[in-house]
Amino acid sequence: MAQTFSASELKQIYDFALDLGRRAGRILIEGVEKRTGDVGEREEGGVGGGQREKMNAVDIVTQTDLDVEAFVKGEIERVYPGHKFIGEETYSAGSSKEYLIDASPTWVVDPLDGTVNYTHLFPMFCVSIAFVLNHVPIIGVIYQPLLDTTYSSLVGYGAWQDDGKVGGKRKRLPLVNGPKAVLPREAPKGCIFSCEWGKDRRDTAGGNMWRKVDSFVNMAAEIGGRGGKGGMVHGMRSLGSATLDLAYIAAGSFDIWWEGGCWEWDVAAGIAILREAGGLITTANPPANPETDPIEEVRLGSRLYLAIRPAGDSEGETGRQAQERVVRETWKRVRALDYARPGA
Amino acid sequence: MAQTFSASELKQIYDFALDLGRRAGRILIEGVEKRTGDVGEREEGGVGGGQREKMNAVDIVTQTDLDVEAFVKGEIERVYPGHKFIGEETYSAGSSKEYLIDASPTWVVDPLDGTVNYTHLFPMFCVSIAFVLNHVPIIGVIYQPLLDTTYSSLVGYGAWQDDGKVGGKRKRLPLVNGPKAVLPREAPKGCIFSCEWGKDRRDTAGGNMWRKVDSFVNMAAEIGGRGGKGGMVHGMRSLGSATLDLAYIAAGSFDIWWEGGCWEWDVAAGIAILREAGGLITTANPPANPETDPIEEVRLGSRLYLAIRPAGDSEGETGRQAQERVVRETWKRVRALDYARPGA
Repeated sequence: MAQTFSASELKQIYDFALDLGRRAGRILIEGVEKRTGDVGEREEGGVGGGQREKMNAVDIVTQTDLDVEAFVKGEIERVYPGHKFIGEETYSAGSSKEYLIDASPTWVVDPLDGTVNYTHLFPMFCVSIAFVLNHVPIIGVIYQPLLDTTYSSLVGYGAWQDDGKVGGKRKRLPLVNGPKAVLPREAPKGCIFSCEWGKDRRDTAGGNMWRKVDSFVNMAAEIGGRGGKGGMVHGMRSLGSATLDLAYIAAGSFDIWWEGGCWEWDVAAGIAILREAGGLITTANPPANPETDPIEEVRLGSRLYLAIRPAGDSEGETGRQAQERVVRETWKRVRALDYARPGA
Repeated sequence: MAQTFSASELKQIYDFALDLGRRAGRILIEGVEKRTGDVGEREEGGVGGGQREKMNAVDIVTQTDLDVEAFVKGEIERVYPGHKFIGEETYSAGSSKEYLIDASPTWVVDPLDGTVNYTHLFPMFCVSIAFVLNHVPIIGVIYQPLLDTTYSSLVGYGAWQDDGKVGGKRKRLPLVNGPKAVLPREAPKGCIFSCEWGKDRRDTAGGNMWRKVDSFVNMAAEIGGRGGKGGMVHGMRSLGSATLDLAYIAAGSFDIWWEGGCWEWDVAAGIAILREAGGLITTANPPANPETDPIEEVRLGSRLYLAIRPAGDSEGETGRQAQERVVRETWKRVRALDYARPGA
């Protein structure tokens, strides 16, 4: 049923997506320039002078977001008119929250992930472009304009970081390799845990915020604490961008990412890159028996994700076995989240 | 008592510090290169192959940290032999935890802030260099090597961002200006709250971890939640670098930073930059009456910090009044932290 592509066709699509990410990112940078201007050392004007700001910042951001999506969509339609397109802005404008991806070649795009960061000029925002075939993201491109850094992958070809800054060198993912590639024996102790507080802040005992906080504190607390659930992770990180959380998991910068509530455009490119780098991604919600139940493949539209970084083999344990061990140790410490999804 | 400097002497010291930060950062980048190597597109070798890693990552990081401090200290001694030097590595190697800064011209340096991030190749690490006179940080330089970005200030001369990437333009801090410069009327609602989980993870009701979690959840929860303490901040961020938290507050990317446990080399440069950008910094711990008690100037060695970003004036409220309002609204929601300090 699903359309097939030759290796050279896929490489062409990958190169197109890589270039498209950078071009889209340039539009985001132009939006930044509109908001900050360009001042010489001697220019007068102190805090909040507003001299440099000619438009309302939020208006500029909204318009830039739409502009980038229109640009990306237009380029894809021009070069690949037979492909489907699902974009964050287009989707959000509609009333349905259904999972719309089918087996056909589909581009899944978030023109601006980390919108709040972008508005505040905090560099942790990005363009996210995925090419999905038969429900599987097989190409992923994540471009961070303020770092001029791209994380990308093509299935079978590898996952890569292109850093425009440090000598412009292309590096294979994960970046963190060698001895660091082995997951800690006492994980989650020793791990960097990446998590987001999200938008659901209802102060109710059964609500997502309390489930998250419970889970965060279990992961953070000393070994032996929290009724035995204390995980003593080495560091807790919250960036405000699910897409970049996944990119940093693929790079090996973070070890564990656990989140609920994201949409497919937030994670499709990251899933492609993470898998090609050797990472594992499954569901956030622990099964009935976290010790023994099967570790299912992630479902793209599930809105529930647990990702473990690429891991090296060690004596008596393959990398995959270590990842599965960390999945189970995380599941034992986190609570099921409640993010409903029609059609998924 | 304290030595005095002319404006041109201070400008020379500032220029020296700016250059020193970048040169120190280059040593950190060399440490990154040692750990990731330089691979061509076609190079074989998968996850955890270890082919690219010739030394133990942690050894490289420790050695790099020491190398950077020795380099910075050596340069300062060469150019300014009469100045005092306090560095993170030197200090930590000693047994005293006393506050050692006095009125004399003193360089306060963290060669690598965000060491865990550096080890994991997560870009949120930096060099931090401050020049302190009569207990006041009057020059600050924070350099992020992987972003090739410097935040800096000289008292009376302004606070600046030099971004090696986006056209290499020099921008005055705060970057976020115009309408965004006004602090939200309902703050902390609408604010980006930056906070760190820290290393103290004891699971005891009176311990710092519980006080922090309590405070975080108050700031995050919906308005009306948490017995009226819910602050409904717009976003929660944790970077794992106190120095960069302060840099992003000075830039206006984050609105509120609340933290305990840092040392003077973590914050001295950030305090200089934040103040020169127009920000406010005081103590993390709420006074007896958060509504009316005076808002004291921060003490450099206090280990307790609450910082508010630069803020514009609005109708009926100056920027300073708005900052003080946000200090009080934060104090109402956070708990006193317990970080003892001999001699401070």
